[in-house]
Amino acid sequence: MSEPVLEVWFDFASSYSCPSVLRVGDLARARGIGILWKPFILGPVFARNGLTQPPFLVSEDKRAYMIRDLERLCAPLGLEFRLPEPFPQNSVTAVRLALAVEAEPWAGDFYARLFRAAFGEGAQIQDPAVLTALLEAAGREGAALVERARTDPDLKAALRARVEEAATKRLFGAPSFLTPDGELFWGDDRLEQALDWTAALRKA
Amino acid sequence: MSEPVLEVWFDFASSYSCPSVLRVGDLARARGIGILWKPFILGPVFARNGLTQPPFLVSEDKRAYMIRDLERLCAPLGLEFRLPEPFPQNSVTAVRLALAVEAEPWAGDFYARLFRAAFGEGAQIQDPAVLTALLEAAGREGAALVERARTDPDLKAALRARVEEAATKRLFGAPSFLTPDGELFWGDDRLEQALDWTAALRKA
Repeated sequence: MSEPVLEVWFDFASSYSCPSVLRVGDLARARGIGILWKPFILGPVFARNGLTQPPFLVSEDKRAYMIRDLERLCAPLGLEFRLPEPFPQNSVTAVRLALAVEAEPWAGDFYARLFRAAFGEGAQIQDPAVLTALLEAAGREGAALVERARTDPDLKAALRARVEEAATKRLFGAPSFLTPDGELFWGDDRLEQALDWTAALRKA
Repeated sequence: MSEPVLEVWFDFASSYSCPSVLRVGDLARARGIGILWKPFILGPVFARNGLTQPPFLVSEDKRAYMIRDLERLCAPLGLEFRLPEPFPQNSVTAVRLALAVEAEPWAGDFYARLFRAAFGEGAQIQDPAVLTALLEAAGREGAALVERARTDPDLKAALRARVEEAATKRLFGAPSFLTPDGELFWGDDRLEQALDWTAALRKA
């Protein structure tokens, strides 16, 4: 029987997507679960749910808490968490790039590299030169891929379709995890629960 | 050395406060940690943080997710989760009652009983008769306590002071957990982390 697969929905602009993408590879492997990457952009998803901004930006207290919470969550991952400036970043090109490579075996490693740059080094991920350098640091040919992410109409259409898919699947935030039997889990703190749910399907 | 104490902030109107109050007793005991109950009302705290309604009510998708998430979280606690109608309930009298008894050794058991009624049986916790019956089912003298909760100016002042304390401590949601060294943790999914943090203080 083939391994059950968990859909992992994330956006490079989403702070809590960072620890999930850094963690999910090892956790899924340990349970014999596959990952189906679903990069998407949160902006239109927030808008459809009546949110005019990321929920953690409603007040200074909530924003300060988010930073401290992520510092605590990311320290064990060897990441000194740092909120990018500005936050959220414009992630459209980076997410189109993620879409372009989502079926590659090196996709997860590249996503992790991009998240570490965005939330550890203050990298400006809307800058094509930054994305190109990250691809090259990962041993990939960068410039042509980034140019595709910026201009390819097929990739633009693919991202629009992905956002539609998020709406159909009733997503409202990131990270989100969708199991083969249609259970939705939202938030980095639900990652283990989503993986355990998926693992239980195989035994059932 | 005396046991370290975790502040547990909750509101009977708050859905995610329910599993935390049901869980915290055993988890704290297992770690040798004391609990300082901090019943409060979320409404003024939301308002101060620019929220006009509970965050999960912004859209139908988010509301539906919250219910499913709580069903999954509460099932292992023997609670068939059910969202009260209307949601959120007006919890002012119930929270004043909680304040009145918060130093009693039976407070935690009574809070759990109230949460199970509110989120399992659709009990209308703004109804003084419902609160009286819950106290009596717990073996307590109900009517006089509920009358105090409704009318005692000292209890009203105590709740106002508690809401001020929440602001000073930069709370923005419930449940929230505050450690002896001032670390704030928000959400039922942070309960174990808050307890582990507190336990580590004793060893340090």
